[in-house]
Amino acid sequence: MNLHRVHQGDAVNLPRQPILLTPGPLTTSDRTRDAMLRDWGSWDGDFNQITARIRRETLRIVHGEDTHECVPLQGSGTFSVEAAIGTLVPRDGHVLVPNNGAYCQRIVKICRALGRRHQSIDYPEDTQVKPADVDRALAADPSITHVALVHCETGAGVLNPLHEIAMVVAKHGRSLIVDAMSSFGAIDIDARQTPFDAVVAASGKCLEGVPGMGFVIARRSTLERCEGNSHSLAMDLYDQWAYMNRTTQWRFTPPTHVVAALDQAIAQYVEEGGLEARGARYTRNCRALIDGMAELGFRPFLDPSIQAPIIVTFHAPDDPAYDFKTFYQEVKKRGYILYPGKLTQIETFRVGCIGHFGEAGIPGAVAAIADTLKAMGISQVSPKALA
Amino acid sequence: MNLHRVHQGDAVNLPRQPILLTPGPLTTSDRTRDAMLRDWGSWDGDFNQITARIRRETLRIVHGEDTHECVPLQGSGTFSVEAAIGTLVPRDGHVLVPNNGAYCQRIVKICRALGRRHQSIDYPEDTQVKPADVDRALAADPSITHVALVHCETGAGVLNPLHEIAMVVAKHGRSLIVDAMSSFGAIDIDARQTPFDAVVAASGKCLEGVPGMGFVIARRSTLERCEGNSHSLAMDLYDQWAYMNRTTQWRFTPPTHVVAALDQAIAQYVEEGGLEARGARYTRNCRALIDGMAELGFRPFLDPSIQAPIIVTFHAPDDPAYDFKTFYQEVKKRGYILYPGKLTQIETFRVGCIGHFGEAGIPGAVAAIADTLKAMGISQVSPKALA
Repeated sequence: MNLHRVHQGDAVNLPRQPILLTPGPLTTSDRTRDAMLRDWGSWDGDFNQITARIRRETLRIVHGEDTHECVPLQGSGTFSVEAAIGTLVPRDGHVLVPNNGAYCQRIVKICRALGRRHQSIDYPEDTQVKPADVDRALAADPSITHVALVHCETGAGVLNPLHEIAMVVAKHGRSLIVDAMSSFGAIDIDARQTPFDAVVAASGKCLEGVPGMGFVIARRSTLERCEGNSHSLAMDLYDQWAYMNRTTQWRFTPPTHVVAALDQAIAQYVEEGGLEARGARYTRNCRALIDGMAELGFRPFLDPSIQAPIIVTFHAPDDPAYDFKTFYQEVKKRGYILYPGKLTQIETFRVGCIGHFGEAGIPGAVAAIADTLKAMGISQVSPKALA
Repeated sequence: MNLHRVHQGDAVNLPRQPILLTPGPLTTSDRTRDAMLRDWGSWDGDFNQITARIRRETLRIVHGEDTHECVPLQGSGTFSVEAAIGTLVPRDGHVLVPNNGAYCQRIVKICRALGRRHQSIDYPEDTQVKPADVDRALAADPSITHVALVHCETGAGVLNPLHEIAMVVAKHGRSLIVDAMSSFGAIDIDARQTPFDAVVAASGKCLEGVPGMGFVIARRSTLERCEGNSHSLAMDLYDQWAYMNRTTQWRFTPPTHVVAALDQAIAQYVEEGGLEARGARYTRNCRALIDGMAELGFRPFLDPSIQAPIIVTFHAPDDPAYDFKTFYQEVKKRGYILYPGKLTQIETFRVGCIGHFGEAGIPGAVAAIADTLKAMGISQVSPKALA
């Protein structure tokens, strides 16, 4: 199959690499990975310039230069989400979590672990959060200080109406924390239009870096008031920010190679045309995926009107010959890594639309899936009720 | 200078790379960095095998296969230290911190941030922790549940007497948490001889991986009792362990490239001859460094009897022509990255003995320093009192 990218890895006899159709870690470019071939001193000025550039460029993506600060943090994206909640929500704060999926539930778990008072508005996994519900909840309970919203809920793939909810939260004078893990850089967030106190994202998602660090874009005037809130030393964003501004360095050892890779990934992001181009590419991928899969009889779990162009959940084939494990392995043999479903009630699987692969990537994946169906003897792809 | 390693990076026009004489991030091998040229699905079986292998091999290094478990964690080493304290010390626990340097003080800060009761025994930075003091403190205060010890205090470079202190802690029936960040893999720790509940280390130190993850070697029977202790979701080692055992996966996105690099680094560690060979190599480096620097007039801050072969603190030249920033830049121009001192009272700088560089590395660094002294016009290297 000539869809496999040939790169440096092959030169040292690594096996051929499948394309990752997962919501991150995802397929990165050779140039991004090559940036990890150098060791950096974490105290060194050359490295600190890289950190400064990442902070500047990520701020620019959300047009937050005048109002916000980027605070990078070691660890996965969840570490940054926890750090944002732990640092920005005072110990006597009260968090409202509109909950339509697995990553919203993770925020609830974080609030519980941190001992932050919280409540949720629960939705089925195939629906968006409704701004009117948030409006009502905030009007009903003046003790709520913060709303924690997941922008793109990759549990199923739903895009939540961030701007509308942000306007509601601002109207009530409360604070908004956005988990934009899988939307940042691909779906527009504009700090000049959309009021938020924090947007949280990570290196290994739509910016197409490698995983290992996250970052929080926090409103400067809010951050300034957050000293002493944090439940943790390592995840104290205030301290991380204050130290970084004073010294240009990270407080504790940064993942230097991951940082250097993100810097290169952002350079390519800018060269590609920034958010507009990146979002358009993913949207093309998403459309090609849904169309191609429809031809095979696969039905997406979500209504197209609320589908984010990041990851698509498909109903599993309604055929006794299907099991996810074999399906996964067979598609992998053909060069593509899929992702399991995350819904508790319905059998599904997920296919990501993001990452560095060419226009042939999605058609190639669909062909691999078609081939796998044949190999597994699966004829009944659509649920029987629809066939 | 032909001490610079030429590697793949040069092929894509990266600048020539200095050797890092820092306590981590350090200089890694081409093979370790090349392992980062592949993207891994974090859910994929091939990747989970890598995680399992790292867990097994790190346990083996401390002979903990029968008694302990390795729990890897995203983030820098400090994240793992905080996770160990937050997970292993119950909320009503009481931690004794024998304190002879900056990393001990960091543990005190962690206890404070986590709201864990703590007290310290304070020592000057040029002395070892004394087992008799720990004995007395534990006898005097039965409310102390845990002792948190830094094995090699890289603030100045002191090796603390781990085994003797562990025996004292065990005699009193208390629990020992060891920050072995910069000793793990180079200085012997044997779980069969030295009782401990947790040993904490990280990828980018003596195992010569890249930075971005830590791990905690925790006693199984202790870990089993730690559900619900943690102050954090992301840093809950019990939850990380239970989930990993159930699924073979990390709970949250792992730094896949960092993990793959550590796996390759450990393979090279084993091939080199394991702890004995690694420790001997660093000891040779340390001796060559102290001897070479002595010829230039530099005096180490520590008495040789308590110096760990990891990083050496030197008194700064007692000459008005000296300033660290210029000294650092000049040595860097000549191919070596030094490390600033971490002592508050005395002007010092530090030189690491660890990392992947050949036997020519240390003499090369000493030559670069000699050359720099000349270039800066520094004649008075030893303090005047000694000259």
